[in-house]
Amino acid sequence: MGNKEVIGDGERGFAKGRWCPTKLVVFCNGVTALVASLRPWGKGAGGGTCHPPVLPKRSVPSSASSSGPASTMQPSRWIAAWLLLLQACPPGRSQQAASPRTDIRDCSVDPPYLPPTATNTTARLAALRDAMRAHSVHAYIVPSTDAHMSEYIAERDSRLGWLTGFTGSAGTVVVTLDRAALWTDSRYWTQAERQLDCNWELQRTTWIKSIGQWILEWVPAGGNVSLDPFLFSIDTWNSYSQALQGSGRALVPIETNLVDQVWGDQRPPPASSEIYSLPAEFTGSSWQEKVSGIRQQMEEHTRSPTALLLSGLEEIAWLFNLRGDDIPYNPVFYSYTLLTSTNISLFVDEGRLTAEARQSLRAGCPGPLCVELHNYSQARAHLQRYAQGNVTVWLGTEYTTYGLYGVIPQEKLLEDSYSPVMLAKAVKNSKEQELLRAAHVRDAVAVIQYLLWLEQTVPQGQVDEFLGARHIDALRWAQQHSRGPSFESISASGLNAALAHYSPSNTTRRKLSVDEMYLTDTGGQYLDGTTDITRTVHWGTPTPLQKEAYTRVLMGNIDLSRLVFPPNTAGRNVEAFARRALWDVGLNYGHGTGHGIGNFLSVHEWPVGFQSNNVPLAAGMFTSIEPGYYRDGEFGIRIEDIALVVEAQTKHPTGEEPFLTFEVVSLVPYDRNLIDVSLLSQEQIKYLNAYYETIRARVGPELQRQQLEEEYRWLQRNTEPFPLASTAAAAAATLGTLAIGSLLSVLLAGLQA
Amino acid sequence: MGNKEVIGDGERGFAKGRWCPTKLVVFCNGVTALVASLRPWGKGAGGGTCHPPVLPKRSVPSSASSSGPASTMQPSRWIAAWLLLLQACPPGRSQQAASPRTDIRDCSVDPPYLPPTATNTTARLAALRDAMRAHSVHAYIVPSTDAHMSEYIAERDSRLGWLTGFTGSAGTVVVTLDRAALWTDSRYWTQAERQLDCNWELQRTTWIKSIGQWILEWVPAGGNVSLDPFLFSIDTWNSYSQALQGSGRALVPIETNLVDQVWGDQRPPPASSEIYSLPAEFTGSSWQEKVSGIRQQMEEHTRSPTALLLSGLEEIAWLFNLRGDDIPYNPVFYSYTLLTSTNISLFVDEGRLTAEARQSLRAGCPGPLCVELHNYSQARAHLQRYAQGNVTVWLGTEYTTYGLYGVIPQEKLLEDSYSPVMLAKAVKNSKEQELLRAAHVRDAVAVIQYLLWLEQTVPQGQVDEFLGARHIDALRWAQQHSRGPSFESISASGLNAALAHYSPSNTTRRKLSVDEMYLTDTGGQYLDGTTDITRTVHWGTPTPLQKEAYTRVLMGNIDLSRLVFPPNTAGRNVEAFARRALWDVGLNYGHGTGHGIGNFLSVHEWPVGFQSNNVPLAAGMFTSIEPGYYRDGEFGIRIEDIALVVEAQTKHPTGEEPFLTFEVVSLVPYDRNLIDVSLLSQEQIKYLNAYYETIRARVGPELQRQQLEEEYRWLQRNTEPFPLASTAAAAAATLGTLAIGSLLSVLLAGLQA
Repeated sequence: MGNKEVIGDGERGFAKGRWCPTKLVVFCNGVTALVASLRPWGKGAGGGTCHPPVLPKRSVPSSASSSGPASTMQPSRWIAAWLLLLQACPPGRSQQAASPRTDIRDCSVDPPYLPPTATNTTARLAALRDAMRAHSVHAYIVPSTDAHMSEYIAERDSRLGWLTGFTGSAGTVVVTLDRAALWTDSRYWTQAERQLDCNWELQRTTWIKSIGQWILEWVPAGGNVSLDPFLFSIDTWNSYSQALQGSGRALVPIETNLVDQVWGDQRPPPASSEIYSLPAEFTGSSWQEKVSGIRQQMEEHTRSPTALLLSGLEEIAWLFNLRGDDIPYNPVFYSYTLLTSTNISLFVDEGRLTAEARQSLRAGCPGPLCVELHNYSQARAHLQRYAQGNVTVWLGTEYTTYGLYGVIPQEKLLEDSYSPVMLAKAVKNSKEQELLRAAHVRDAVAVIQYLLWLEQTVPQGQVDEFLGARHIDALRWAQQHSRGPSFESISASGLNAALAHYSPSNTTRRKLSVDEMYLTDTGGQYLDGTTDITRTVHWGTPTPLQKEAYTRVLMGNIDLSRLVFPPNTAGRNVEAFARRALWDVGLNYGHGTGHGIGNFLSVHEWPVGFQSNNVPLAAGMFTSIEPGYYRDGEFGIRIEDIALVVEAQTKHPTGEEPFLTFEVVSLVPYDRNLIDVSLLSQEQIKYLNAYYETIRARVGPELQRQQLEEEYRWLQRNTEPFPLASTAAAAAATLGTLAIGSLLSVLLAGLQA
Repeated sequence: MGNKEVIGDGERGFAKGRWCPTKLVVFCNGVTALVASLRPWGKGAGGGTCHPPVLPKRSVPSSASSSGPASTMQPSRWIAAWLLLLQACPPGRSQQAASPRTDIRDCSVDPPYLPPTATNTTARLAALRDAMRAHSVHAYIVPSTDAHMSEYIAERDSRLGWLTGFTGSAGTVVVTLDRAALWTDSRYWTQAERQLDCNWELQRTTWIKSIGQWILEWVPAGGNVSLDPFLFSIDTWNSYSQALQGSGRALVPIETNLVDQVWGDQRPPPASSEIYSLPAEFTGSSWQEKVSGIRQQMEEHTRSPTALLLSGLEEIAWLFNLRGDDIPYNPVFYSYTLLTSTNISLFVDEGRLTAEARQSLRAGCPGPLCVELHNYSQARAHLQRYAQGNVTVWLGTEYTTYGLYGVIPQEKLLEDSYSPVMLAKAVKNSKEQELLRAAHVRDAVAVIQYLLWLEQTVPQGQVDEFLGARHIDALRWAQQHSRGPSFESISASGLNAALAHYSPSNTTRRKLSVDEMYLTDTGGQYLDGTTDITRTVHWGTPTPLQKEAYTRVLMGNIDLSRLVFPPNTAGRNVEAFARRALWDVGLNYGHGTGHGIGNFLSVHEWPVGFQSNNVPLAAGMFTSIEPGYYRDGEFGIRIEDIALVVEAQTKHPTGEEPFLTFEVVSLVPYDRNLIDVSLLSQEQIKYLNAYYETIRARVGPELQRQQLEEEYRWLQRNTEPFPLASTAAAAAATLGTLAIGSLLSVLLAGLQA
């Protein structure tokens, strides 16, 4: 599954001509749904009016729930409303919407023009402003994150979404007593225009500097700017603090969340599902061993920290070998941990722990390996008391909120970007590696079943994107140890694949066709591991560009996968190997190249990957490798595998730490129909053939074990080795020798005759 | 010439066995000078004593002046003294020195054991401490930079070197009333141990945090920690400030430099040479055009800065088309500039300007293009007055000192890493590009003359490293527009090349031999451009490893040079292409991959290059590309070219900004004797052949114009195209056909007979 780094997404929305538009692009929640050509103005256009759009043949409205966290919600009413708009949209309306103004909304007329997808937020805003007045707050900042800086959030934490109607995964809101604005990035501009009502200004940037300037403009000196300190990371808090410094506006944290207060009993209730122990067969080591290892790191640290504060939901779940179900697709549970050299305090809703889990945590009580259970809401108070002593608290600044950080005096802090638990979790031990490898074998079975099923059923014209997504989900569920998909399945046909995070829904679905490319980016949660794989296929005749682009994406995937590199290399410094084959001909892709992944944890696991804030690659880390290519309004390609960082065997060993390389653990062959072998180098073909041998060796027996004979044959067909030029040459040479030999025999026979 | 980023240089010095050493490595100022094997302890060693070293055959003491800025000084007495030590060193002494302790110095005995290369600093330190007491200073910090954060400094600015005796190019010193310590990186540990006396602790790290902790340990609360604010960048000041925050120690800037005060009249005098105008034929545009362009950027900036403060010596020289001679090899002059929308203030020693230069600057007086001349020392006072108004001052934080920065109120600052002048200078306009190209053609002539001369004279056994360096310098001087070398020529034979910045001296020189590799890294200053090129050669039979390593370094050079990449790509993200061929077999190099270069300015020109703090690559930038490989005690390889970033022709144009690639402007062929063609890919061979064609087309005519016929023939020989495999195969195939044809003829003739 693609990660969130987006480069040069460009402006989207209704294309704007100088007078009349020449092209109309309709986006559903950021996804291209309809591309219409408009005849150029002046040719046949009478009286200075613009032409209505000429709809292309296949431009049925086929799209789009939201992407990212929002997509984990119930399909909301706005989708239906928006579809109505699209289908009912009269030419006149389209023209008007396509006229050269900067927002789909028109708040300058009375009554304002708003798409039916907009949410009326007048009452919510009024209530929030009442709460602000009661707290003497002149501006209130609302982010899109939760108290653990989670990438995915639960509906209950979607404060920004509820307040504004905007369901994009990233944004910041500032509400003053008479103005309200939303800041979001280019992925979400059109979506925001369609979802916000006229109470909201849309700010097309995410720079905190710009938010600060807006606040200085609309909040008079002497005013209070407030926020919930549990929803802002240390860095973000500092940025706001700096933006307001010396301006006469105070930055005032308020622990009562004002949106929650206004949301009231409409707000979804807290998670109540079970928190359970992961069976020992699915863990790399006992939680006691993990705690001991971390305590050893604390002892060995030059600063001798007395405690470690854990705020990341994944790191706590990993440390204690516990799992929950608090965030869709992510088996985590809300909690904090304070680990000292003698005590372990876990802040969690104790009642949710299974008896077994409670027993596991309490088995060592009393003693240094006894987990004391405290209420989730007590974390801050407990930490504040602890920080009064002669202590040093170690924490990860990337995901600790100011609400906790702020209670620790500066001189008692030991700050790193990531806690030692986060870093320990990132390097899988040999058992964790085996578990993840095993999960990927069963996952490959499900994906192979799916690809064969598509091959057989798509030509009959009855499969659409949504059915496809449901089918792969079902195939995964049928595999041993399955706990369902690891994110909302991406199933995108034709032009829908041009946006990297498209997911179909029950109401918006494009039919799969032998005339289009199809991209499927899916993953599974298994007790032994989390998976994530993308394959792009074409069942008919791809265009030369499609074939070239696919092959070059594959070349990038191969070139990065087979790279040998020194220890301590940062992913950022090698990710261009996944791009070079595309760059060579002027192509590129606008997202990151990979992300870490967990053992039955998050599908995007920090801090591993190829982005600038990732830690250096080390043996035992798992990362996705996922180059792609996207052609707006036409097609999208992505080839994603999960790879394990392993030690490399090099011709000249250094004598120091060994060099590293990748072992690809995703085991599904690529689409032969889309590979132009003539573009591949001999090294790439050799790599590919070796990878296919591995697939046969590891997935073949599992297919047979599951008595999937047809799939087994499909696998054999699709992992046939590609011919090497030298082999071909050698074959030709042999043939030449044979020919001469035969010729000689004939001639000699003739002579002898 | 290699830039300064050093990765994993490792610990150097005397090898330490558990009981007796098995290997003795002697470093001269950081350069391997002698490697001696010691027989293993226990075998034939009686009475528990260690064996004396067995000196290898070629281990004549052959080394090393210092590298970096220090190398620009007069050869100092310590080199001679140290050579004496090496040559006179009795076995007993060697054994003692090689015993397992952590410093060459032994300060625990009385009198202390010190190498003769150490400087007695007792009197200097006592005088400094008197000055500190007079200013109520309890710790004084001395850096190795000058007031412009120049990479190279003049002798007059070598305060750290004078105070400590340590001549390495990077370090920080802290002196308290009873302790003194030097912090430096691993390149310089051995050198520091040889040069410091027992007044100094050597701290083997450069982290400011570590310096801060040391200060907290040795300066009691209430103490004053002082420094010269004109020698610290903003960032460094902030780091010290943070390290001491809340500790009860105050960070107090003192404008009088205490080292200068103690140094007194022994300190070299200020530069007094002429500052002159560069003739118009050698400039990209007039200084007035440059100033207008910068003023336009100021106007268009959203913050509307009223002034621009320039502290970088290169940016001032470039802006005004002036040159000087204040720092060896760098044609710059000490100055500051404050450029406002209506005024231009240049702070410089006016008496040093030539009449012509003064006239150029004053031609527009009075008016907005009139340069007002102020004394260099008035910069701070002038800026302070200016900053009292309603102004906004734009500056580059990477190289502006706290001394200037501190006088501008925070809200009146507009901070960027680099000033717009620095960024404008980095992108050469078409005339500047042509000038640099032209300089490289003449520079190639000098280097080709040198390579031919080496080929002819080395076998006679009379050439040594120092003579070689002098010869290439002389050849460059003979070229048109030459202003001498652009840095101290690196001329390193055999094991001396294993250290990337080795330069020979009059007293330490290794003989060049057909049995060893030879590395020459040199550059020239020409009125039209600065050059920098490294070639590594072997006149005899290289070992298989030497040949493989050389070929892989070349493959890296080629792979980065021929890379096509999107606009706004950071060098850091693509520099691994220069390493991959080495990585493939477990090899690597420990320095950066390239740096910007000027038009008759610095050989290391920021902010262009492949390091993490460089700006993204853009068309018009020049950078070196210089992978290498170094094998301690054996040999060193580096292949360096200067390349211009140009627009690329791609098969699929993006329609937006064009993709980029490199045009190599260094025009000297590589050593065919060291290339293993079988390792090269077809694409690499094609690239190499095309590059050789360019060399022939551009350098050939210049060689003929200079009537260098022998060199011309050498060039033709050394730029013969390499055969492509397909051509070879085609040739073989043709041969095969011919053979069958002949065979048939023969047989048919036989039949007919």
